[in-house]
Amino acid sequence: MTLSPARTPEALAGGLTARRPTEDDFARIQDGLTHWWGGLGGEAGAQQRRLLVPRLFLQHFTSTSFVVDDADGRLVAFLVGFLSQDRPDEAYIHFVGVAPEHKRAGLGSALYERFFALARAAGRTRVRCITGPANLASVAYHTRMGFRLEDGDTDVDGVPVKSHYDGEGLPRVCFVRDL
Amino acid sequence: MTLSPARTPEALAGGLTARRPTEDDFARIQDGLTHWWGGLGGEAGAQQRRLLVPRLFLQHFTSTSFVVDDADGRLVAFLVGFLSQDRPDEAYIHFVGVAPEHKRAGLGSALYERFFALARAAGRTRVRCITGPANLASVAYHTRMGFRLEDGDTDVDGVPVKSHYDGEGLPRVCFVRDL
Repeated sequence: MTLSPARTPEALAGGLTARRPTEDDFARIQDGLTHWWGGLGGEAGAQQRRLLVPRLFLQHFTSTSFVVDDADGRLVAFLVGFLSQDRPDEAYIHFVGVAPEHKRAGLGSALYERFFALARAAGRTRVRCITGPANLASVAYHTRMGFRLEDGDTDVDGVPVKSHYDGEGLPRVCFVRDL
Repeated sequence: MTLSPARTPEALAGGLTARRPTEDDFARIQDGLTHWWGGLGGEAGAQQRRLLVPRLFLQHFTSTSFVVDDADGRLVAFLVGFLSQDRPDEAYIHFVGVAPEHKRAGLGSALYERFFALARAAGRTRVRCITGPANLASVAYHTRMGFRLEDGDTDVDGVPVKSHYDGEGLPRVCFVRDL
């Protein structure tokens, strides 16, 4: 299968444009990772988010990722995902962000749906992603988007959590969705 | 091209065994990221290294990665790499670690050579990787392994460095090698 990194930008409502990212978007995505989470986890949380999206994702996985610019060319949303190299049925959504002033307008869902379509077209039948258990809005959001919660080894506020999933002190909630 | 995640373990000198990792190796690799760098960067450096190798690499990129166990089953080295999804000519080595008591015995080089061979077999003609400019041993090592240093925007002790390459305050030295 050949992926097409350069796809035509697509006009969305409100003067927004969705397109594939380039490496030049890296700094703006890092800025979003710092400022778009409402201070979740403080400076340590911001640092953790930034380190989880090193530049390599904007070099090697842009053909399965999206960014959204507003009419003035400002970044207002992104989705970084990939097709699993080892699991031929699976796609993975690594990180999604939406600027606070654009939340609750369906922008995140628009990017998820585009990723689902792209993964289906590439023959994938399942998509996985994770979030932190402190991010209850994210847990609710993924459930609405059709993801099932995977079993955890503990339960936090009724949510199954895998302790130390991404390392010591980094618990995660794991989601899976059929495509 | 189809990758073969499950390859036969390979005996190395000194009772060591090289094999493809599984997800069960994640915690031991995290432990190596904490302890094998001689305290480089202090606790912040260890945290940075751990966050740069989230579990997803042990789920989706094991077919292009290696671990080495000693005769007692302890992890003594790892290499995490992948074939670029977007750049059909390119492979990428994301992180390599060798336990201090096994350094200077050619173990890292053995893993690099196996990755080079695997990447060549998959049709890749170029491999890239990066390191931090504070890690002078790593810069010297990659030069010995046949990597060229890419141009930087600044110069640190004669080494070309790309400032803020992986985010604010995260400069990197970038390497490329033909296969």
